[in-house]
Amino acid sequence: METPWDHRYAQRTQRMGSSAIRELLKLTEKPNIISFAGGLPAPEIFPVDEFSKACERVLRDYGALALQYSTTEGYLPLREMIARHTARYGITITPENILITSGSQQALDILGKVLINPGDRILVESPTYLGALQAWNAYGAEYVTVPMDKDGMITNELEEALRTGPKFIYVLPNFQNPSGVTLSLDRRRQLLEMADHYGVPIVEDDPYGQLRYEGDHLPSIVVLDDQFRNNGDNHFRGNVIYLSTFSKILAPGIRLGWVIAPQEVIRRLVQAKQGTDLHTATFNQVIVHEISREGFIDRHINKIRKVYGERRNIMLESMDRYFPPEVDWTHPLGGLFLWGILPEYLNSADVLPDAVEQNVAFVPGKPFHPSGGGHNTMRINFSNATPEMIEEGIMRLGKVLGKRIGKKVAA
Amino acid sequence: METPWDHRYAQRTQRMGSSAIRELLKLTEKPNIISFAGGLPAPEIFPVDEFSKACERVLRDYGALALQYSTTEGYLPLREMIARHTARYGITITPENILITSGSQQALDILGKVLINPGDRILVESPTYLGALQAWNAYGAEYVTVPMDKDGMITNELEEALRTGPKFIYVLPNFQNPSGVTLSLDRRRQLLEMADHYGVPIVEDDPYGQLRYEGDHLPSIVVLDDQFRNNGDNHFRGNVIYLSTFSKILAPGIRLGWVIAPQEVIRRLVQAKQGTDLHTATFNQVIVHEISREGFIDRHINKIRKVYGERRNIMLESMDRYFPPEVDWTHPLGGLFLWGILPEYLNSADVLPDAVEQNVAFVPGKPFHPSGGGHNTMRINFSNATPEMIEEGIMRLGKVLGKRIGKKVAA
Repeated sequence: METPWDHRYAQRTQRMGSSAIRELLKLTEKPNIISFAGGLPAPEIFPVDEFSKACERVLRDYGALALQYSTTEGYLPLREMIARHTARYGITITPENILITSGSQQALDILGKVLINPGDRILVESPTYLGALQAWNAYGAEYVTVPMDKDGMITNELEEALRTGPKFIYVLPNFQNPSGVTLSLDRRRQLLEMADHYGVPIVEDDPYGQLRYEGDHLPSIVVLDDQFRNNGDNHFRGNVIYLSTFSKILAPGIRLGWVIAPQEVIRRLVQAKQGTDLHTATFNQVIVHEISREGFIDRHINKIRKVYGERRNIMLESMDRYFPPEVDWTHPLGGLFLWGILPEYLNSADVLPDAVEQNVAFVPGKPFHPSGGGHNTMRINFSNATPEMIEEGIMRLGKVLGKRIGKKVAA
Repeated sequence: METPWDHRYAQRTQRMGSSAIRELLKLTEKPNIISFAGGLPAPEIFPVDEFSKACERVLRDYGALALQYSTTEGYLPLREMIARHTARYGITITPENILITSGSQQALDILGKVLINPGDRILVESPTYLGALQAWNAYGAEYVTVPMDKDGMITNELEEALRTGPKFIYVLPNFQNPSGVTLSLDRRRQLLEMADHYGVPIVEDDPYGQLRYEGDHLPSIVVLDDQFRNNGDNHFRGNVIYLSTFSKILAPGIRLGWVIAPQEVIRRLVQAKQGTDLHTATFNQVIVHEISREGFIDRHINKIRKVYGERRNIMLESMDRYFPPEVDWTHPLGGLFLWGILPEYLNSADVLPDAVEQNVAFVPGKPFHPSGGGHNTMRINFSNATPEMIEEGIMRLGKVLGKRIGKKVAA
């Protein structure tokens, strides 16, 4: 049906387009499929009872407050809680350094709105988080990429990218989406030194940092930066903007994330957020503050770690057993994803329809590479499917891959 | 404290700026003030018990669904409910014509993102909703304005504005924020005919349409347009995009609104929203669907009408009693606001500090006028304060205004 809106779309809607991946993922929406394609937490361990109790208490004791409009900055007791929590990792911030967002995706959107002029280059890892590209394409961002290996961004190749004058560096240091890879401590330090040398600030996106199943916690870049600049006085200096979320440690359906940034940046973000959605739902903020009291989140994180750690192990073991030797994959120390690398001659997007026919799905890796490449890679989620489904799904996927590789070898 | 972000803000942040009103409103944040400045619903009639029961049922019966990620379009049963509700007013839409948004403000932001190129003119009423200006300034909108009188936008002055080639017309036909004025039926028809003649589509913003305290419901512009184009077959044609919200009929702290638009527009809005916040909180959508079953919202609207209607009457009576004869005001048939008009020689922004000293507050009218003017106007809210506070506050405000006018007359 033709409407008068048809020829009225803004130019930027063209850049937001690339629905290739959306079309691909539509394939995966069929009943009984074992999907490793999404990034969904395991719903069976959502703390439903705790939510129920928190809703009851909040509506009984602060119903009018929880249902009313509130400030754009976010619910003060929640910001105070986040500031206290952040202090445990070694930096001192105040609630004025925090903005509550409607999920971490909104933090990316608002950062783009406040920082990115059309044509600005953003320095990103390749591959990088697709949602950041979607958010920033709308503001006309361009990208300069630095490749990764199994220790994260290859910092030896950073200098050339920094010479192009990027507006900021965007990095997911822990169990990266999509690759599952973690930036090593040495490289975190090297990244900071070079960013400092070139005067380019950093946006650190850390949705999974607390979901580690192996090895020791590594300090966040925001924490290392403050140590680096202050000889250990732990005062927040703000060269690194830090993003995180309650989506993976509590539940994503409440859409609650946060930004830590210098007060002047927060002031600008608040201005932009006010025009964007006035404020994040008061109700959700008060509920999450209520549920988080008395250490519940720490206990719940231990439970998540146990469940996801087991699923990761089963996936890795199943891959060892069922994947052809020509296929490689990363060994994530935490998070939700691992990354499959097929032989160069295979395009994972071509493999997907075969996999879907066998009722198993993944995300092809190419769209995560803003400078191209990655046609032979794939993102595989291990948090959502049960252990039995993981083994069954990896077996099916192994067969599909084996057939493709067999054909090539035979040809 | 200087940070590397300071010289990195995007050009558009300048346009988002205008914090004059924010600074003014900070004045009004003091304890014991009677504030007519905000647009807050009356918290004492929030349906807290119904929310509590709905939370309990939803978490018991669909906890995992309500806490999980969901589609960008919105929770299907909620969209189906809105489609059924819309049918009562005389147009047939499907859930594919609906996008659930994180409050109506987000609908404005995403419409701006999808439709507005820098320099595009948007035709607005003068005064118009400040939140729309805040949302669209970020996308480089410019404005062409049509003045209002007590029957809304003066459609006889529309043609000149239409000749400038605006991208779309933005109109709040019912109990407008800020003026409280309602667009008459004749003018609704005239607006449609002229928009049709010039081929300019319309965005109709209707947050208060159901909160009428006097007179008969007037058909929405989206409904009239379909009748106009279809000789009454009631099929949605999409020349008018319609926005509404649960903020005023249920509670604003849950941030839940919706857009009705042609499917192709919805498809584009969905793409933009995905990069903006992935989706609106699943939990909030499922709760509101649960609470809205069995006609609860209709019953609740009757209660709101009774309470706000009474407050409006008390405010009007108090103004009759306490305001100097030189001051004029609108007689709103519904909604949350009325509009005060001072003598030309008074600037309401200059009056505000005096009022705040007497512990009463309002919003100066100038910022609602994107083409200038309105220095002698003021927006006054009547939904939030109790009847006693309304009478007391209007008495204080009347004294402040009387003193100002007395000085001028004496001088």
